[in-house]
Amino acid sequence: MKILVINSGSSSLKYQVLDMDSETALAKGLVERIGLPGAMLTHHCINGEKEVMLADIPNHDRAIQLLFEAITDPEYGIVKALSEIDAVGHRVLHGGEKVTGSVLITPEVKEAIRECFEFAPLHNPANLAGINACEKLMPDVPQVAVFDNAFHQTMTPEAYLYGIPYEYYEKYKIRRYGFHGTSHKYVSQRAAEMLGGYSADFKVISCHLGNGSSISAIKAGKCLDTSMGMTPLEGLMMGTRSGDIDPAVVAYIQNKENLTPDEVNEFLNKKSGVLGLSGISSDFRDLQIAADEGNSRAKLAIDAFAYHVKKYVGAYAAILDGTDALIFTAGLGENSPSIRQQICSTLGFLGLKIDPLKNEMARGREMDIATPESQCRVLVIPTNEELMIALDTKEVLRKLFGQVIVLDKEKGPIYNNRCCV
Amino acid sequence: MKILVINSGSSSLKYQVLDMDSETALAKGLVERIGLPGAMLTHHCINGEKEVMLADIPNHDRAIQLLFEAITDPEYGIVKALSEIDAVGHRVLHGGEKVTGSVLITPEVKEAIRECFEFAPLHNPANLAGINACEKLMPDVPQVAVFDNAFHQTMTPEAYLYGIPYEYYEKYKIRRYGFHGTSHKYVSQRAAEMLGGYSADFKVISCHLGNGSSISAIKAGKCLDTSMGMTPLEGLMMGTRSGDIDPAVVAYIQNKENLTPDEVNEFLNKKSGVLGLSGISSDFRDLQIAADEGNSRAKLAIDAFAYHVKKYVGAYAAILDGTDALIFTAGLGENSPSIRQQICSTLGFLGLKIDPLKNEMARGREMDIATPESQCRVLVIPTNEELMIALDTKEVLRKLFGQVIVLDKEKGPIYNNRCCV
Repeated sequence: MKILVINSGSSSLKYQVLDMDSETALAKGLVERIGLPGAMLTHHCINGEKEVMLADIPNHDRAIQLLFEAITDPEYGIVKALSEIDAVGHRVLHGGEKVTGSVLITPEVKEAIRECFEFAPLHNPANLAGINACEKLMPDVPQVAVFDNAFHQTMTPEAYLYGIPYEYYEKYKIRRYGFHGTSHKYVSQRAAEMLGGYSADFKVISCHLGNGSSISAIKAGKCLDTSMGMTPLEGLMMGTRSGDIDPAVVAYIQNKENLTPDEVNEFLNKKSGVLGLSGISSDFRDLQIAADEGNSRAKLAIDAFAYHVKKYVGAYAAILDGTDALIFTAGLGENSPSIRQQICSTLGFLGLKIDPLKNEMARGREMDIATPESQCRVLVIPTNEELMIALDTKEVLRKLFGQVIVLDKEKGPIYNNRCCV
Repeated sequence: MKILVINSGSSSLKYQVLDMDSETALAKGLVERIGLPGAMLTHHCINGEKEVMLADIPNHDRAIQLLFEAITDPEYGIVKALSEIDAVGHRVLHGGEKVTGSVLITPEVKEAIRECFEFAPLHNPANLAGINACEKLMPDVPQVAVFDNAFHQTMTPEAYLYGIPYEYYEKYKIRRYGFHGTSHKYVSQRAAEMLGGYSADFKVISCHLGNGSSISAIKAGKCLDTSMGMTPLEGLMMGTRSGDIDPAVVAYIQNKENLTPDEVNEFLNKKSGVLGLSGISSDFRDLQIAADEGNSRAKLAIDAFAYHVKKYVGAYAAILDGTDALIFTAGLGENSPSIRQQICSTLGFLGLKIDPLKNEMARGREMDIATPESQCRVLVIPTNEELMIALDTKEVLRKLFGQVIVLDKEKGPIYNNRCCV
């Protein structure tokens, strides 16, 4: 079984083709500058070779046409024909309250994605464009939506409601949704596998630390709380996002700088975070180099980031009543021993102790970096959102396949020619 | 030594006269509806008697004149003449970054209070009006300002800076300041006294839970972090204040409801919090009654409040690397066993265990409600901001008295006729 995974942004589109028997990527690629001059597709084959195609790519239809050409190319493609693709899994940022898991895309699902344009004005329209392009170009292939907020739908009202009038939740759906759900789900499942499977009381705190960062509290595989909110702006200080601030600061900046609501939002999303604090870069590698060279503002930004991570780890320990494991994932979480060390430095009260040598060695690979006697495991787990999306897609089809047999006898089991259960 | 403590709001003024030998209040009172019809002064004597004076009270000058009449009244006053008052301690909400402790009021201090009008538009002008009225009516008595944010000035930059451009801190002084400092200072000092004095590593988390609520992390008497921010809006969900929300929610509400920055701020300060969430009341006693009668939204508001408190306790434990004591103070913290029980329910990982009977008994009086074997003490400590202000005022005069002798020989030791060291 082969699944194509698509993550489309407003001017870019990432893809992977995964073989589900081996659960590995056969090819992956990136389309950049859709609708802009200098558009291109970069395609990586399983053997490590890279192909770059420069082309005029006015829209997502054309981008997907090009990626189809790339994956079926006689020389560097990985399938002979598109019919070998059994399903497409689409990453969709925001599904609102209606979605609690991954689903086959129907007109109703597309409507739900459209209803959340307002919450995710950059992502959701692009996600839908990718879905529409695939439906047009491969109408017989089932399309599945995997929502970035679905994993967090198990939160209870006290975790997801804000201290604002309840009517605003009812009328405008203002609440905590959370994001990076696919990543938190993947690493928490891997943690359970690494540590001998789920128990009803298995508690983890997963730290997805990258350019965008979020933390989740997860008990027996269910999310209890997560740091991102109605939008990905809330929570940790990030590359360019402010994270938590006094809500009064928003109006204060607006008044001082004469900004509209949309402008102040843009400012808090694009010009804030460690970029704003350091004045140097949103990239932690740049910040680390600058800090090592003695730049105090770069050091301050790193310190503030680690400080905020600590606070969330503690907050979620208080929700979970301790934790069995702390997980580090994503660019920074997987590759920065110094950040991990800094975060863990005052977490001894959780019964947690990391081995400095193991911490240093764990870069981009799965590893338990806690000392043997540490009561709380500390796991570095490279995230794999594409695999998680593909696994979810496979699972949706497996469930659907059974249903189709029963529910839609006249049409016949429409997917059974491509769906291995 | 007798000290008058004044806490003036925009249309009200609270006062106490304290005897500093016994550290007890000789009289206390409240002036209400300053500048409004139906103004009145309510004066409580040491013997428990209450006097109500109805009067036309157009401004703070008149309010202070009236309170002087009340405290010198031959029948229910507590001093024969105003000259018996050795000093006045004024509670001032916001001193910005310039103040790190309590100070004798000088023109420079008044300027610093004025500079913070923008951060505290309701409180600081009223505080200054009270100071000006006292200066006018008792020009020879030293006036001391005790700032509500001063105790938090020991925070480090990673705790007090937000993830926004550093220039906004430099240009507009946008940062975390914190409030309820006098209360956090008082209860953390009492905790140290109750538990045998400060050690260099004595760690407490103090929960000031009332209509306004905040939490502080305190190590060896120094504040490391606190939940309120640039303004008292940040942090816990409160009676009518939202507390923490996704910063994107601010602009979202503005757009939806067509509100100006000031209007959305007003909305988040006055119509949000547990009042907004419950739709019933900002008063937790009302909410508890409604919840007991089966009102699910009232129960939700209480649950959400307790949940947010828990998160902050955990966050601060992560900063302190555990805690020696958890302190509950202010209206709700001192008087609600059920809220304390709910907050502590998942904090066993801190080595904390409360005794249900002791918890039930501790209402409005100092008590350690943890079990004997609990590794973390849980203290109920009624706050006493007036006493703390008076103690600070006394201490400022003690230091100044020495300084005056040395520094201002020509004028002579101007305060030594009223300052007992």
